[in-house]
Amino acid sequence: MTTPTHGARDAADFVRDVYRHAPGSPIRELKRYTELSGMISLAGGYPAPELMDVAGVQDVLGSLSGASLARALAYDATDGHMPLREALAALSTDRGMPSEAADVLVLTGSQQGIDLMARTVLAPGDVVLVEAPTYPAALSAFRLAGATVVEVAGDDDGVLPEVLAEALATHAPKMLYLVPNFGNPSARVLAAERRRDVLALAVRHGCLVLEDDPYGDLWFDAPPPLSLYALRGEVAGAADVCVYLGSLSKTLAPGLRLGWMLGPAAIRRACVLAKQVDDLHASTLTQALAARYLQEGRFAAHLPNLRAAYGARGRALSDALGQALEGRLTFAAPRGGMFLWARLDASDADTSAWLQAAIRHQVLFVPGAAFFADGKPSPWLRLSFASWAEDGLREGAQRLGASLDDAGA
Amino acid sequence: MTTPTHGARDAADFVRDVYRHAPGSPIRELKRYTELSGMISLAGGYPAPELMDVAGVQDVLGSLSGASLARALAYDATDGHMPLREALAALSTDRGMPSEAADVLVLTGSQQGIDLMARTVLAPGDVVLVEAPTYPAALSAFRLAGATVVEVAGDDDGVLPEVLAEALATHAPKMLYLVPNFGNPSARVLAAERRRDVLALAVRHGCLVLEDDPYGDLWFDAPPPLSLYALRGEVAGAADVCVYLGSLSKTLAPGLRLGWMLGPAAIRRACVLAKQVDDLHASTLTQALAARYLQEGRFAAHLPNLRAAYGARGRALSDALGQALEGRLTFAAPRGGMFLWARLDASDADTSAWLQAAIRHQVLFVPGAAFFADGKPSPWLRLSFASWAEDGLREGAQRLGASLDDAGA
Repeated sequence: MTTPTHGARDAADFVRDVYRHAPGSPIRELKRYTELSGMISLAGGYPAPELMDVAGVQDVLGSLSGASLARALAYDATDGHMPLREALAALSTDRGMPSEAADVLVLTGSQQGIDLMARTVLAPGDVVLVEAPTYPAALSAFRLAGATVVEVAGDDDGVLPEVLAEALATHAPKMLYLVPNFGNPSARVLAAERRRDVLALAVRHGCLVLEDDPYGDLWFDAPPPLSLYALRGEVAGAADVCVYLGSLSKTLAPGLRLGWMLGPAAIRRACVLAKQVDDLHASTLTQALAARYLQEGRFAAHLPNLRAAYGARGRALSDALGQALEGRLTFAAPRGGMFLWARLDASDADTSAWLQAAIRHQVLFVPGAAFFADGKPSPWLRLSFASWAEDGLREGAQRLGASLDDAGA
Repeated sequence: MTTPTHGARDAADFVRDVYRHAPGSPIRELKRYTELSGMISLAGGYPAPELMDVAGVQDVLGSLSGASLARALAYDATDGHMPLREALAALSTDRGMPSEAADVLVLTGSQQGIDLMARTVLAPGDVVLVEAPTYPAALSAFRLAGATVVEVAGDDDGVLPEVLAEALATHAPKMLYLVPNFGNPSARVLAAERRRDVLALAVRHGCLVLEDDPYGDLWFDAPPPLSLYALRGEVAGAADVCVYLGSLSKTLAPGLRLGWMLGPAAIRRACVLAKQVDDLHASTLTQALAARYLQEGRFAAHLPNLRAAYGARGRALSDALGQALEGRLTFAAPRGGMFLWARLDASDADTSAWLQAAIRHQVLFVPGAAFFADGKPSPWLRLSFASWAEDGLREGAQRLGASLDDAGA
């Protein structure tokens, strides 16, 4: 039995086509440049380590000992650690979404919510509508589930209802994916009146609305409008189509991998089934930590610091770009989140070509193509102001200006 | 736009059939009884909290501060936190599987490895072979991926090669799922000579072998044979079909949600793609904690304590059952792991019927039906000795005896 002959295969042969031919992430490919000495990377969307409340987290970790630590090291329910479900229900309630612990499904990061929805709702061939531009890892999740992604155009106030209406009628999509608050990459906020329009259209066409809200708490001068989920009671039938995803990654710490889902019980139940076979539950330790952090009021106390710091960074980058690239780059000053989304004015501009010159000038951005379903050359680029203090952002803007001269655009 | 009429749907209508009709877990349904006061539950497979090294974990947590804690709160690579990959490579090497950090994919629990393999390898209609009996959450993962599960019979030494050969020839399966060491629920160990047979057969028929090993470190008197993955060099072609899953859940702490995968690069790459859209990466904090725990030698120092404690418990349950149910229950004394798998000798015995009497006598077990693909009434039952000290296990065995009298079997 030890000299097999026929039937032997190469390991790659076992992998399904959709995974064998999946493209690498363009953002991931930039990673090797981000770590070069002297580089100012405005490419990553990473919370600034120096803005995290490391001391507060350390306090809370230190308070876990004996029985409470043993509990935090044990298995827990798939729906989540009850103290965290309670704390997230209170947080959601505070954000205009009255909730109880039983309404909350804790996720291993809100990314898992996107994936659980893709797995439990989308069958191969189903259509998903997304904003153009949108978050690349959502595009990947939908495609790996075998779905077809169709883009919906928008303007500075988010998706255009008349374009959405036509897409709903044409494609009969199963789901619409939106990041209504300070979206990645567009930084746009879906206008309040459009939120009701979106809900009414979704109900009329029997389409789920997956609302992904990792940035909503990071507003600078004024909070964003109420979430679509918060408005579901105002539109008949909307309660059946609204699923909300929250995240602690941009506000508390991404390394905890914690997010949460609110939505109809039937959909949460399906997601719990999928999560049972996926990872059983999110880490009990990080859940217990986050629960205490929220309960002790540390989260509420920390948010104003974060908002002020990111606000100052957003303004610094916006101002510096206005000076360094006046008349060549069009963008709106960000009102929250971590990103500035800009368009190169030159005709036939392709920011992928510019990127090579930028790398020579030791500055990085993400070319816009990564955020569109077709991946075609694009005049757009995404800049993150989250990871650098104001001085670094100003220097980065100057390098961008110089590199654009160098690129001949 | 606010009074939708046609097209509105009920939330449940959005859920795919495979998730809408998935049965609830029979083990989960027992949970409401486990928490009743006075109940001795031998149903759950949970590591005993009092046997965890809580003080050691607390030491390590306390050593994370400032920059090291900030690092542990940040995003990390999908493949895993490098110090943990290094520590798990060293651990794997120590277990006869020479590995480097780059060979290790860190998982959010080894459960995720089962699911990532199901997602990246199994297309709807593909056949997966499993041992009978087997781990129910693996059955669920394969079925939710649309695969057909076919059982392979075994004896006290694990799957029978001649039965496996026939199943491979008949069903042309894509994958064979095995728990070769102290399996859940059977507690069986796949005999050393059969491991080579299994590899040769799998290569010959072009079938992946997914080796799940959460219990291998919990041996009582002697370690189990080398893993199939460790033996892959001895069978031509086997390196292309061997995937190994390790877990820290039964030995360090389940609440950390940490496991790891070793296997062909092409398969790990596909699993990384799937993990990117699933949860981006396992918690950096729990990975940093586990890395330090392993690096500081605490894991190696703690394992002998665990083995001795579980060994004593396994013997206590085995001895007590032998006395309380002599001649009515057949089982092998466990040599490792957390479970004792027993068969009721009465003809046409169905342990689901016995369970009702057991609950009245304040003792719980899991009826065997949960562990077979067909879910039919079964004369088998699974007992866990992990969660009770010896006195509780003896009392549990006596209650089982009394309840069986009461059940009229």
